[in-house]
Amino acid sequence: MAKGKVTPELIEELKKIVGEKYVYTDKDKLEPYSHDEVTDPHYMKDPQVVVLPANTEEVSKVVKLCYDNDVVMVPRAAGTGLAAGAVATFGGVIISIERMNKIIEIDKDNMVCVTEPGVTTSVLQDTVKEAGLFYGGDPCSGDSCFIGGNVATNAGGNRAVKYGVTRDQVMGIEVVTPSGEVVTLGGKFRKNATGYMLMHLYIGSEGTLGIITKIYLKLVALPKYQMDLLAVFSNLDDAIALTPKVMNAGITPVCVEFMDNASIKQVEIFLNEKLQHSDIGNYIIIQIAGDSEDVLDEQCEKIDELARENNALDVLVANPAVIWKSRKAYLEADRARSLVFSMEDIVVPMTDIPQAVQQISRLADKYKVAMHCAGHCGDGNVHIDILKDDRTQEAWEEMLPQIQSEIYELVYNLGGRLSGEHGIGYKRAALMAKYTNPIELKLMKDVKKALDPKNIMNPGKVVNINDEVPVE
Amino acid sequence: MAKGKVTPELIEELKKIVGEKYVYTDKDKLEPYSHDEVTDPHYMKDPQVVVLPANTEEVSKVVKLCYDNDVVMVPRAAGTGLAAGAVATFGGVIISIERMNKIIEIDKDNMVCVTEPGVTTSVLQDTVKEAGLFYGGDPCSGDSCFIGGNVATNAGGNRAVKYGVTRDQVMGIEVVTPSGEVVTLGGKFRKNATGYMLMHLYIGSEGTLGIITKIYLKLVALPKYQMDLLAVFSNLDDAIALTPKVMNAGITPVCVEFMDNASIKQVEIFLNEKLQHSDIGNYIIIQIAGDSEDVLDEQCEKIDELARENNALDVLVANPAVIWKSRKAYLEADRARSLVFSMEDIVVPMTDIPQAVQQISRLADKYKVAMHCAGHCGDGNVHIDILKDDRTQEAWEEMLPQIQSEIYELVYNLGGRLSGEHGIGYKRAALMAKYTNPIELKLMKDVKKALDPKNIMNPGKVVNINDEVPVE
Repeated sequence: MAKGKVTPELIEELKKIVGEKYVYTDKDKLEPYSHDEVTDPHYMKDPQVVVLPANTEEVSKVVKLCYDNDVVMVPRAAGTGLAAGAVATFGGVIISIERMNKIIEIDKDNMVCVTEPGVTTSVLQDTVKEAGLFYGGDPCSGDSCFIGGNVATNAGGNRAVKYGVTRDQVMGIEVVTPSGEVVTLGGKFRKNATGYMLMHLYIGSEGTLGIITKIYLKLVALPKYQMDLLAVFSNLDDAIALTPKVMNAGITPVCVEFMDNASIKQVEIFLNEKLQHSDIGNYIIIQIAGDSEDVLDEQCEKIDELARENNALDVLVANPAVIWKSRKAYLEADRARSLVFSMEDIVVPMTDIPQAVQQISRLADKYKVAMHCAGHCGDGNVHIDILKDDRTQEAWEEMLPQIQSEIYELVYNLGGRLSGEHGIGYKRAALMAKYTNPIELKLMKDVKKALDPKNIMNPGKVVNINDEVPVE
Repeated sequence: MAKGKVTPELIEELKKIVGEKYVYTDKDKLEPYSHDEVTDPHYMKDPQVVVLPANTEEVSKVVKLCYDNDVVMVPRAAGTGLAAGAVATFGGVIISIERMNKIIEIDKDNMVCVTEPGVTTSVLQDTVKEAGLFYGGDPCSGDSCFIGGNVATNAGGNRAVKYGVTRDQVMGIEVVTPSGEVVTLGGKFRKNATGYMLMHLYIGSEGTLGIITKIYLKLVALPKYQMDLLAVFSNLDDAIALTPKVMNAGITPVCVEFMDNASIKQVEIFLNEKLQHSDIGNYIIIQIAGDSEDVLDEQCEKIDELARENNALDVLVANPAVIWKSRKAYLEADRARSLVFSMEDIVVPMTDIPQAVQQISRLADKYKVAMHCAGHCGDGNVHIDILKDDRTQEAWEEMLPQIQSEIYELVYNLGGRLSGEHGIGYKRAALMAKYTNPIELKLMKDVKKALDPKNIMNPGKVVNINDEVPVE
């Protein structure tokens, strides 16, 4: 890892590049940059300095300065991650792209949006919609996350069943490499077979290979109608098995979400209102969209029929606010009960979700810990909130790795992976090193070493090249 | 580049691995492996030996043997490429995956097809359809190409507007690395944020980073209905401008193809039948698909209306055989006129197609050469056939680079790239080195060096590390 120090001289040089105002060194200004959405203090770290460049040229100059001085860099978007990826765990300079917040162009004819990375995702979605088009990407934190962070982490979300994850929306990116060079990969064209698709390597690399400074996003037609359904099942197998039946029936939902009974009970407490069949229910939420109300009505009827064949206790079609209320409250309900919790983000083949959730339920009993499951069953991505509750930090730090070990043994036996959409960051780097096939891990390290030979760009995240230990 | 020789001892060792029958050294058996679909003899080369492993284990053993003996390897699927990528240009052992031709599993519930790489694409499409599902990928050579070649080259095709290119269908691959190790990247799950997406690096790397031995493909719902339209325009701008109008109107076609007037005239000669408005026409072919005939009828009417507003001379809705007849004959018509021709494969922003085609028309006049344009205007991918006709090989080899230079200057000025779907192989490696941004090219070379440090796996293709010269 690069070993240079953040010196007063370096800070002066940073100020010359971006202006004094945009170099933060005061403790109160630094605090918000000491963490992302991971609430465990174990993953927090006050940075020494945060720099806010205004444009690609300034990013490039800042990166060159750090590179020449051998100082670690940590790219940061909105800090809404769930993997401690944008925290200065190993010291160095945090480079925030928050000032780069302009949508550069909505090209309706080519159906492309060109944007800076610091645009809030929901702002981008709304702006595109005003132009009569649709941006398919939709991480659940759209109101607070930045599109640049979405691309850097390959953010997932609800709509992936129909529209894919962030990767599937990206046509091109401009990247500043670890040595400060600027390169555009891809662009305003929809097919590319011109050499290695480096763009796809940078997407989801969590700021460990470079800083994304401009993005070309694919836009699609805005669907005219939408319908939302809630189906309730006493049996989780029946619930999950609905998805392939719907999809095999020729329906491609926008999303298929699920919540297990433990989650529903927790949300009921949080919302302080009775939820349907909260005693034994498991929820499946399906959204469909299209250009014909008649077709959507038919699809709704078909889903209702399939759900009842699959022993649904109830099927409700209502406005999104009603249908989504419990699912939207899932995270907040857990956070309200236990500020510190670990949110696992496993992905398994869709049909193996019941097996995973049942095993998790057994682990909850075994460790006498609250574990709540919800997620995106249309793509096998299950979030498991493991709640610290009133355990001591020590007891928590002893218990959590044991539970994770048992979960990940199972997940990898099912052919799954440890993160479907939240990424690795620092939080899961050790777990990844443990569970990833050694050949795959070596290939990833080879790529990191090739594209960041100084190990200077967000080191210790994703692949921890030399098992570096965080700074004190 | 690896410098080991194909010795009689090596051939004996190969026979021990795969069996004597599956090691070809006789001239008549080697001939079919001396070329792909590039008809220019300049890009042909008789191999010394072709080996046909039966499974991943044999591939791995063959690769280890070559690796240990420092002998260049050339992975090969069906040999239907258009870039001389699977030819032993630099000597070595051709490893053909043609015997690995089993569809391993169609998992209806997870909507995944697991297959060996040597399955013919149309066989895979048909088998999936029989199971009531749909494989979205569709290179135009589906009857002859292999799915493994599709993945290795990230094959495009007509349906990319709606379903994306091959990359968009792939959930996982098993790869044998240049040193013979076997690793599975991705799998039966639809979201993955577990480290660098190496899978996307291998997809489209044209056998230069490893050999793909197993593939996990995403399946989707089979659309119930399909409609095909032909719209004829006297003005190319009007023709191309129809696409964004259709897509902005909320219609996502399966494909939008075009043919310029020069192509239509050539096809008319080839088919020996009168084609609509062949005197001045440019064709746009649109296919739409969905689950409601009413919706498709409405969309048809809307496209008809938009086409006529855009000065279409004629709009025809008919069965696919009629609508697609001229487009399907495009390549054959050119081949019949001039066996040797160069098929360029540029990609530009969709709205820049008219500018590109007009410039090509000017070049055809300037060089007094036949140049015919057709392609996928829904994604900006234009094929340009440059015909040798009765020029001498010398005159052809002098003229072609000059024309290519002028084309690619323009394409890169428009923000495009030199290959949309045919890939680089050996045929375009020098052009790629010339036109690619030097920073991007260096990054690609860094990746190649990292993942194939011996430069032993299909060297000299895509990125020619040390500007190696083909063997005599």
